[in-house]
Amino acid sequence: MSKIVFGVDIGGTTVKMGVFQADGTLIENWEIPTRKEEFGRYILVDVADSILTKIDELGYNKEDVIGVGVGAPGPVDASGTINKAVNLGWDRINIVEILSPLVQLPVKAGNDANVAALGEMWKGGGQGVPNMVAVTLGTGVGGGVIVEGKLVAGFAGGGGEIGHIRVEENETDFCGCGNQGCLEQYASATGIVRLAKKRLACDEAASMLREGELSAKSVWDAVKAGDTVAMEVAEKFGYYLGKGLASVASVVNPEVFVVGGGVSKAGDIIFEYVRPYFDKYVFEGCKDVKFALAKLGNDAGIYGAAKLVIEE
Amino acid sequence: MSKIVFGVDIGGTTVKMGVFQADGTLIENWEIPTRKEEFGRYILVDVADSILTKIDELGYNKEDVIGVGVGAPGPVDASGTINKAVNLGWDRINIVEILSPLVQLPVKAGNDANVAALGEMWKGGGQGVPNMVAVTLGTGVGGGVIVEGKLVAGFAGGGGEIGHIRVEENETDFCGCGNQGCLEQYASATGIVRLAKKRLACDEAASMLREGELSAKSVWDAVKAGDTVAMEVAEKFGYYLGKGLASVASVVNPEVFVVGGGVSKAGDIIFEYVRPYFDKYVFEGCKDVKFALAKLGNDAGIYGAAKLVIEE
Repeated sequence: MSKIVFGVDIGGTTVKMGVFQADGTLIENWEIPTRKEEFGRYILVDVADSILTKIDELGYNKEDVIGVGVGAPGPVDASGTINKAVNLGWDRINIVEILSPLVQLPVKAGNDANVAALGEMWKGGGQGVPNMVAVTLGTGVGGGVIVEGKLVAGFAGGGGEIGHIRVEENETDFCGCGNQGCLEQYASATGIVRLAKKRLACDEAASMLREGELSAKSVWDAVKAGDTVAMEVAEKFGYYLGKGLASVASVVNPEVFVVGGGVSKAGDIIFEYVRPYFDKYVFEGCKDVKFALAKLGNDAGIYGAAKLVIEE
Repeated sequence: MSKIVFGVDIGGTTVKMGVFQADGTLIENWEIPTRKEEFGRYILVDVADSILTKIDELGYNKEDVIGVGVGAPGPVDASGTINKAVNLGWDRINIVEILSPLVQLPVKAGNDANVAALGEMWKGGGQGVPNMVAVTLGTGVGGGVIVEGKLVAGFAGGGGEIGHIRVEENETDFCGCGNQGCLEQYASATGIVRLAKKRLACDEAASMLREGELSAKSVWDAVKAGDTVAMEVAEKFGYYLGKGLASVASVVNPEVFVVGGGVSKAGDIIFEYVRPYFDKYVFEGCKDVKFALAKLGNDAGIYGAAKLVIEE
């Protein structure tokens, strides 16, 4: 019987779980609810139960399991310590030390955005590219830096926090992190809506965006329909993201930026707005980079979590 | 007889060379001139001759030599290809493919700033720190990113090019790279002089900087003497460098920034100006970082080049 590996992606509402063959073939995936009561103390217990049940169900033994990888929403250092995961109710805990005795299997843990990046490198938009940066444009802007096939977790698990690069000096609104002018304030789904609202408030110019509910999707739909105001918003988005990624490129010089998250559902059109600004601001020696869409969607986390264990 | 290793740092005027024990103890260092004529075609030949002579001189055999590491002034990829080294007259060549047949020894090559970073991690200001970023404030601003003890060369050898992060939107002067607003325009020795000249031209305020020749050293000397105008210049320097390094921290989350190059000779006082801005602009999760002075000076390159071979 060939070996299997578990990938676990802990989110604020559900825990996504997957069991894979060692080559990355997904055998089965499922979800369990994230029980956040009592400071989230049942979350890892539930994960352990679900894994042990699945091993039985599939007719495997513990010896057939390579291990369990976990992605969690917060900074996770190399030892598996997560320093506050507000969404889960967790304060500072060590995921590896709690989960491994429960499952009696090797456990590794990482930040969810970082782990998703690893998933995209393994089986997604960055497949086979050892030097890449994954960029997640969702409610916030997350990132994952991969160098020579390995995740850059950083000293305190803060590697890949590219959403908080400062890209605007004259911002008056605050980012969720407490700073002003963070990339996240312009390139996330909420950031795009904010840019659109600001643009609409400037004058009375006709725009599709004045009808219906404003969302990142409605902005990109309007861009595709040739709406001039929406295109101005896209231009701002491209300016900030292009400039921010130019800084990232100067630090780690990736071969590919793999862009995922809700905003990326608009498709390749986003790159038409990002690329010119990236090219303008990037250092010549780091210019030769490709932009690709992420491919695994919400499953990137379970793939990457599984890969976390296999890469050892 | 214990094994030895060679470290070679190719500069525009001289080639610095060192022979080390495997534990990093320097046995001897020396220099040879960099012969740039005929597109620098004799440089690696001279390096090979010098190494072979030294092996003989010291009474070693080829079997005692672990290999030869080389740092060169340009982007060097993982295979040893350097893409233009203007200072040497080189176009695109592969250092490893040229030098290893000449010495009949294993050869590795890297960018000089990156290699110097590795030296500082091995035996200098970042000793024993696996996640660090070296920042060289010289004629330009260079950098080297080290993750888990390994250099981040990047896809095209452009890793650590932190001098070209854009930190100012309203710059009218151009950086040597062709962009505007690069960190290098404010935090290098030449950048500091530029900032000082601009400040002095603003008004007639009394300052020591109006006497004698203006240099990064004279600016820092004046800061130490309490010169108000010089302190304003230092404040600007700190603003730009602090902001730029905050971006770097968000990408790779180092434990230490090791700062070297001519400007760093001013000492710890530079951190008094950089730290407040770094703290202001950095993402909370990446804030816990130390600033340290580089220790190896001009020898960082030969140490790091030697380490390049040993880390394999």
